Amino acid sequence: MGKFMDVHHGMQGITADQLKEAHRRDLAIEAEEGVHFEQAWADPKSGTVYCLSDAPSADAVKRVHAQAGHPVTEVHEVSLTVS
Amino acid sequence: MGKFMDVHHGMQGITADQLKEAHRRDLAIEAEEGVHFEQAWADPKSGTVYCLSDAPSADAVKRVHAQAGHPVTEVHEVSLTVS
Repeated sequence: MGKFMDVHHGMQGITADQLKEAHRRDLAIEAEEGVHFEQAWADPKSGTVYCLSDAPSADAVKRVHAQAGHPVTEVHEVSLTVS
Repeated sequence: MGKFMDVHHGMQGITADQLKEAHRRDLAIEAEEGVHFEQAWADPKSGTVYCLSDAPSADAVKRVHAQAGHPVTEVHEVSLTVS
């Protein structure tokens, strides 16, 4: 398992409810792929959404997002974290 | 105050110690700009680093990172969050 940050583009104007609903759809099916989406942040102005997950692979992250209806191409394994 | 995600590129090979030290340098001066860097995630392979902060503006985030020696151009205000 690793930690992954994926980035969606083109989501200009996304609302709080739409983000919540997209996240809910991920959570509903993520277990099938052994993924857990922890957090997501959206900038409605630029249309950028960042999702942080624990997952077995970048491909698993992509499969969940694709099945949930919001496919993503940009997924980075963020193996280092500080807080 | 808002929440911001900034993205650094070209940091291929960054180590855990280097990430920790960069974060420490931000924390040492962030108060001057009313910024607080909460977390950072790094992908040493692609050289991408994501930083999450609370800040009064994107410019304040840029000033702290620049003064700390790791300037950034890509800063998004992430006004929506889910977890």
